[in-house]
Amino acid sequence: MTDLEKKSGAVEVPLEFWFDLSSNYSYLSLMRVEDLARGRGIDIQWRPFLLGPVFASLGWNNSPFVVQKAKGAYVKRDMERQCAKYSLPWSWPSEFPRRTLLPMRVAVYGQDQPWLADFCKRIMLLNFAEDQEIDSPEVVGDVLCSMGLPASDIIDASQNEAFKQALRIQTQQAQEKGIFGAPMFVVHRELFWGNDRLEDAINYCAEVKSQ
Amino acid sequence: MTDLEKKSGAVEVPLEFWFDLSSNYSYLSLMRVEDLARGRGIDIQWRPFLLGPVFASLGWNNSPFVVQKAKGAYVKRDMERQCAKYSLPWSWPSEFPRRTLLPMRVAVYGQDQPWLADFCKRIMLLNFAEDQEIDSPEVVGDVLCSMGLPASDIIDASQNEAFKQALRIQTQQAQEKGIFGAPMFVVHRELFWGNDRLEDAINYCAEVKSQ
Repeated sequence: MTDLEKKSGAVEVPLEFWFDLSSNYSYLSLMRVEDLARGRGIDIQWRPFLLGPVFASLGWNNSPFVVQKAKGAYVKRDMERQCAKYSLPWSWPSEFPRRTLLPMRVAVYGQDQPWLADFCKRIMLLNFAEDQEIDSPEVVGDVLCSMGLPASDIIDASQNEAFKQALRIQTQQAQEKGIFGAPMFVVHRELFWGNDRLEDAINYCAEVKSQ
Repeated sequence: MTDLEKKSGAVEVPLEFWFDLSSNYSYLSLMRVEDLARGRGIDIQWRPFLLGPVFASLGWNNSPFVVQKAKGAYVKRDMERQCAKYSLPWSWPSEFPRRTLLPMRVAVYGQDQPWLADFCKRIMLLNFAEDQEIDSPEVVGDVLCSMGLPASDIIDASQNEAFKQALRIQTQQAQEKGIFGAPMFVVHRELFWGNDRLEDAINYCAEVKSQ
């Protein structure tokens, strides 16, 4: 932060939470981040981005958990253990990674809306707990409807070129920030990678706020 | 374990600790594992293996922290924070990853000896705290001498074809177990990857022992 910001005492230090709805480790954080942040008075900035182009830039045509067989086998077991630890429901998706373009566009459309967290949790649970396809207007519409939201309006708006482009731009911004995987937490230009660093990111955020 | 083993009550469940002396995250675990294991009455089986052939099998001609630039930049910062958290000395090596073939052969030669842990810690500290080259007979000899060990005898023995071969075989065994990175902890066929899983591995080990 600048000296001016420091002196003004008006610094807000949010936790930027960068995630992809098809990312299993993002699931762990997305289900936990609100409780952790709320307890410390930390604001979350939700930043959905596409892992696909990030992986492509590394020469991978798919998730490393698909490309690297041994790591993929490990991650399946690791997720079972992690979800047991956090008391989260879990089932390895029969299609992995799932196509998530539509719910990702809805997430970008609503990233500053109060319903965003709940929407993402519901989509994540369909993917990672109920093993359901999540990229159709029907499924996304049902989720939005069940939240009492104008489903058709939101889906139509999120399919506008402006929001397609917004998701592409946000993905480019992720890469410009040095983001190479998900989840990633960014606090005041400091990067924290993976669900295993969520608590460290929260602690750092609280520390910077208190300075 | 088998039912017979369970009934006999004589089951020993060691923590297999798979590491490479050139691996920075192995450093974090190597400096911590003894204290954590001792407090729970857990035996450690030290299993040095070479990451190089593992990376080569993934199509990488070097560490992912070199091949993948953004991840490499992140890891440098992450290591600073992690070492601060664990109160460990730290300096990113000016050569990374360092050549470690000689100390790795000595580690395989001594992997069941009481001096092994201390030897590995000293080599790790030279590499990751003092930024020193560690692959020469002089440096390895000095370390062994300072521990009161017959340095020349150990170095000569570790350079025998038998121990060169032992390191190759142990590296193959790692891959056969599904090991794709370091550090890796193996408890009764369950794999735990990375320093972030050390506590989970210890807890699992204690749990299996108590059954």
